[in-house]
Amino acid sequence: MENVGFDEIKEGMMSIQDQLCAYLVGATKQQFLEDVWTYEKGEGGGRTRVWEEVESDVLEKGGVNFSSISGPELPQAALASMPASLSKSEFRTTGVSVVIHPHSPIVPTIHLNVRYFEAGDLKNNDVQVWWFGGGIDLTPTYPQFSQVVQFHQTLKGIVEKHDQDYGKYKRQCDEYFYLAHRKECRGIGGIFFDHLNSGQPKRQLWEFVQSVGLSLIQLYDPFLKRQSEPYSEQQRQFQLWRRGRYVEFNLLWDRGTKFGIQSNGRTESILMSLPKTATWKYSHTPEKGSAEANLINFYLKPQDWVNLKDQDEDQLLQKANQ
Amino acid sequence: MENVGFDEIKEGMMSIQDQLCAYLVGATKQQFLEDVWTYEKGEGGGRTRVWEEVESDVLEKGGVNFSSISGPELPQAALASMPASLSKSEFRTTGVSVVIHPHSPIVPTIHLNVRYFEAGDLKNNDVQVWWFGGGIDLTPTYPQFSQVVQFHQTLKGIVEKHDQDYGKYKRQCDEYFYLAHRKECRGIGGIFFDHLNSGQPKRQLWEFVQSVGLSLIQLYDPFLKRQSEPYSEQQRQFQLWRRGRYVEFNLLWDRGTKFGIQSNGRTESILMSLPKTATWKYSHTPEKGSAEANLINFYLKPQDWVNLKDQDEDQLLQKANQ
Repeated sequence: MENVGFDEIKEGMMSIQDQLCAYLVGATKQQFLEDVWTYEKGEGGGRTRVWEEVESDVLEKGGVNFSSISGPELPQAALASMPASLSKSEFRTTGVSVVIHPHSPIVPTIHLNVRYFEAGDLKNNDVQVWWFGGGIDLTPTYPQFSQVVQFHQTLKGIVEKHDQDYGKYKRQCDEYFYLAHRKECRGIGGIFFDHLNSGQPKRQLWEFVQSVGLSLIQLYDPFLKRQSEPYSEQQRQFQLWRRGRYVEFNLLWDRGTKFGIQSNGRTESILMSLPKTATWKYSHTPEKGSAEANLINFYLKPQDWVNLKDQDEDQLLQKANQ
Repeated sequence: MENVGFDEIKEGMMSIQDQLCAYLVGATKQQFLEDVWTYEKGEGGGRTRVWEEVESDVLEKGGVNFSSISGPELPQAALASMPASLSKSEFRTTGVSVVIHPHSPIVPTIHLNVRYFEAGDLKNNDVQVWWFGGGIDLTPTYPQFSQVVQFHQTLKGIVEKHDQDYGKYKRQCDEYFYLAHRKECRGIGGIFFDHLNSGQPKRQLWEFVQSVGLSLIQLYDPFLKRQSEPYSEQQRQFQLWRRGRYVEFNLLWDRGTKFGIQSNGRTESILMSLPKTATWKYSHTPEKGSAEANLINFYLKPQDWVNLKDQDEDQLLQKANQ
């Protein structure tokens, strides 16, 4: 099995972007706008594809971004997590980032990221460090118990097909997407991994990463199919209030956003993850026992989803609301 | 002239809160809700007063908060800016924070803060360090040139009546309320000062700080009087998009917010500054020469406001839009 190099990974990332976009256009009948940009501080650039709601569109805001950039020297902000010997190294990185905020509060927000990084004396093909990173996670407003369990079971299957550790990546996801100032998770989790470069040959890791990239189609489809279910104005308002929490996470806690902003990255690409609309209300607390309280008291706390049974739902919700 | 102590300053802060609230209720005919809370990690607490829009209310969201807290040990996050000898000192702090987001895009958002801090062996009346901090600044969506100049001229008068340095505090305000990732100021500025403890006797500094606290009434009144002027839905949408920038500043850059979140402060009080509604739009750029473009290209860059003349407006806007 021959090794896999940057160009092949880059082509693979573009293909992931194309397949995800084709799926989303087909499933929503809504076209994206494409914005092609170049990286000003080095070489490369990106292909940003954006959905913005017009009238009764399914997606209120969404983006599927591909980027591939290289630079003669690692940005200062990146050095903290790297060996000092790399401080003057060339670097290359490529990946795909997805955030989809549907209009309907019944359909969750989904986030996906797959990325590859390498550094070294790249002109002379001397790659000194490399790794993959990525993950996928779901932020529902009105979760359905069985659908959440199904999401995690399907995801577990995808991860384990590649002999990777679902349990570890699931815990890392719960830890990463956490709003400490609210004592809440951002959503119902998923998987998150970083600095993945061992345990399997590089090509096998890349196959795993590609599966994660494409997993959105299989994982999100049952949720997106609910796009025409009715909902109330009160549910829509609750969704917009929850989107305030999404903004809080991304601007206060997300390391990717922080890194991008501090390293003087492309602001519009970094902040594309923000929803179209978010609201705040002072000291708002949903009524005990309501679907809204269930979200906060049960779904936004880490759960052992894959081992929960449909018949446990009532008891678990009752316990969480005590 | 006898010295001024913590209790007197605390009483003065409560009086500032009362006067500002009385003014706002009178000027808007809109009542606030009061939330009295206690500080869980030490002694003291606060009196949060919140306006939240119902139907055609003037204020979409607003808060005038008084707090006075003390603790046996400075929070870790506070130590960075203090002498190491204080690491085990008791501290006390009291202040008033104001953020007002009116519904009308014609009326600017205003922010005010006045605060007093002391640390030392306080049980034995041994205050080892103390200082005042504060400021006031304006974030308009549709600024009127002459009103902005007037705002700064009035503010300069208030500051200089106390023999304080308007120019220095104005520059500090421009520097503090800056969105580096957008290369934009948050608004048209005002004044900002911190660690103020010298140059004048403490009582005189306290008189200056009180004047700043009450200055909102005089400074904001000409703007709030415009609450019933007509505006378009398109102007309202632009305002909500600008509020996204307000959120970005507060969550990405504001040191007070960062300090509060990191030191495990009271989340609802810290994030009360956020607007009710904020929107984001990918790579949005207002049309050249429009009022919206004037805001971004001219008003949100630091200007020598007090020395501008009404007749300069057209030329300055033209130049800024080139």
